[in-house]
Amino acid sequence: MEPNTMTAPVAADIDGAIGYLTLNDAERRNPLSVDTMLRMTGALHELSKSGVHVIVIRAAGTVFSAGHNLAEMIDRTRADEQYVFDVCTELMETVQTVPQPVIAEVAGHAIAAGCQLVASCDLAIASTSAVFGTPGVKIGLFCSTPGVAVVRAVGRKRAMQMLLTGETIDARTAADWGLINEAVDPADLEDAVRSLAAKITGASTSTLTIGKRAFYEQVDLPQSEAYRRMGSTMAINAQTCDAQEGMQAFLDKREPHWQGK
Amino acid sequence: MEPNTMTAPVAADIDGAIGYLTLNDAERRNPLSVDTMLRMTGALHELSKSGVHVIVIRAAGTVFSAGHNLAEMIDRTRADEQYVFDVCTELMETVQTVPQPVIAEVAGHAIAAGCQLVASCDLAIASTSAVFGTPGVKIGLFCSTPGVAVVRAVGRKRAMQMLLTGETIDARTAADWGLINEAVDPADLEDAVRSLAAKITGASTSTLTIGKRAFYEQVDLPQSEAYRRMGSTMAINAQTCDAQEGMQAFLDKREPHWQGK
Amino acid sequence: MEPNTMTAPVAADIDGAIGYLTLNDAERRNPLSVDTMLRMTGALHELSKSGVHVIVIRAAGTVFSAGHNLAEMIDRTRADEQYVFDVCTELMETVQTVPQPVIAEVAGHAIAAGCQLVASCDLAIASTSAVFGTPGVKIGLFCSTPGVAVVRAVGRKRAMQMLLTGETIDARTAADWGLINEAVDPADLEDAVRSLAAKITGASTSTLTIGKRAFYEQVDLPQSEAYRRMGSTMAINAQTCDAQEGMQAFLDKREPHWQGK
Repeated sequence: MEPNTMTAPVAADIDGAIGYLTLNDAERRNPLSVDTMLRMTGALHELSKSGVHVIVIRAAGTVFSAGHNLAEMIDRTRADEQYVFDVCTELMETVQTVPQPVIAEVAGHAIAAGCQLVASCDLAIASTSAVFGTPGVKIGLFCSTPGVAVVRAVGRKRAMQMLLTGETIDARTAADWGLINEAVDPADLEDAVRSLAAKITGASTSTLTIGKRAFYEQVDLPQSEAYRRMGSTMAINAQTCDAQEGMQAFLDKREPHWQGK
Repeated sequence: MEPNTMTAPVAADIDGAIGYLTLNDAERRNPLSVDTMLRMTGALHELSKSGVHVIVIRAAGTVFSAGHNLAEMIDRTRADEQYVFDVCTELMETVQTVPQPVIAEVAGHAIAAGCQLVASCDLAIASTSAVFGTPGVKIGLFCSTPGVAVVRAVGRKRAMQMLLTGETIDARTAADWGLINEAVDPADLEDAVRSLAAKITGASTSTLTIGKRAFYEQVDLPQSEAYRRMGSTMAINAQTCDAQEGMQAFLDKREPHWQGK
Repeated sequence: MEPNTMTAPVAADIDGAIGYLTLNDAERRNPLSVDTMLRMTGALHELSKSGVHVIVIRAAGTVFSAGHNLAEMIDRTRADEQYVFDVCTELMETVQTVPQPVIAEVAGHAIAAGCQLVASCDLAIASTSAVFGTPGVKIGLFCSTPGVAVVRAVGRKRAMQMLLTGETIDARTAADWGLINEAVDPADLEDAVRSLAAKITGASTSTLTIGKRAFYEQVDLPQSEAYRRMGSTMAINAQTCDAQEGMQAFLDKREPHWQGK
């Protein structure tokens, strides 16, 4: 992974069981340029392989991300445009396919693809000063790919409101609608995310890996098919060393010792 | 389109960029008879072709709509019954397939197919005096087609509550559940809808057309397939004149000039 | 049906139009052992055939259900594990396939498969002292099958919060998120459920049967296919004696007389 220099738009750091992926181009409002998105996808894979238990995506400055780099979408071929969205989709899907839970720590504006990124994370906590929006409609480019993630988080009427008006919602509204899990005082954001991560880092990595993958496997399926697959998943999960240890420890009223398998 | 006379159950008017479709049979509680539904579908197509940017569906009197005309469902053949629901489904789907955003302006009771119509609109604002319900269960005819739209707006437990008890919910509850976007003071309803419409009428019609169609294309798909299609949609959108103009205007910090293509 | 003795883990009682299925092993926190789940599925079928109009699932003691019996999942073959989840899925699906509406009356903790059971019921009312959780992650066995029902009730971000942290939510939060319909004072729970049931027991059993089956048939389908099927369902429903009677009674402003067909 590229070293964390002043000029790299993406930084990756490890602090104990938590891997931090930081958008680091505050001056330009952390745009999700193709280069930045490719680095983020790469950093997610690297952090994932490093053995951290949880990944946090955060951003330097007062803007989480203003979305795509518009300069990359003016006077380009359709193939170039398509490439931007292919890279973007790969990033959003990687957030959900890495085995570790991914938490968005949102200190400021999360706009367009930035809002999509928050909606795509497994969990999200934002500062009460953060706002969320999909304003592409105002510049002629409807936020159709952000809409994929946003409507799956907040439902139809609210997604349409965001997409058709382009207006932002505040963090408390985002929490009320289920776009994020919680809105906290700006001064408490980092601690709140750390505290949320701490509730997860003690779990078996094997269990988290099975559970996260299973969640996204079933969430879009008809219920009967979802049950068919999850019944099989749970039977496999139950056969793992960590599940056997965890259940026995619970019955013995002692702490479990995870092997990660 | 039929002229707006005292006796027509449906009126269509254009006020600037807004097309108004008005249910105009207040005395009979604006029933969605087959004739009325066919006129509404026709009026939606006509308004759509007229070049308005937003369509508002509203109703004269204190009842938005009491639902189907029961007289059309007593002592009929199954084919006749089927026809009522075919015409109804065509209306609800037309609300979502016309290129313009459709806003429900709900001043009073929205019941059964009337509630379904509100749930089917892209956006909805209601007076705090409005109520919403699917009471078919009380007269032996379960609101199964309204349920299609209602459960997709408010989720399972709340839809089941409405469908199984037949009881109404008030407008604030409807806003809390996501059935409508906002509940406002009765005196403010018209202005609130006009204000919401004004947030949309300034957008490129080309962009709105692409965006609305894309939204309904992706909303029921598995996420990965939704992304595949929306990535392509956004690449096409980005190639339009209005997107190129909109992005450039944004970078130039000036107002865009839409060509509608 | 087995008589209701002190030792049976599941009791079934009929009180007028309401069938009560009671988890009766308060001392062991009402575990959903294979035996108990099979008895519950059997009792649901028996109550269903008995002619009651509504079924209520409740539990003795201060724990609604602590979930699966872990002793049945330690040192077992994968086939044995699979059997536990097959039996569980059959129970959850039976709750939704019996023709009568099923209401969960939740006086205390609803955990793991116990939480799944609440999420699977058509309606649910809980005491404000109840809590809900999917804590399998803490013992190495991710709540993947409960997740199927929970995410379909509360959405992605909130389901992930419950599944990844294993922490419980209180009843007011569960009502706010749509996991249950209402949280009431502990002293009012039984009356609140009885009152909710009373809003349903007066309906035509034929109509309820058609409506409940239709709801679950359509809820996971793409909207256009859902409408195609529900249009046909409503035409069939409208041809029933009870629908014809109900609509005529409504027009005549008199009470309907149901024949149950």
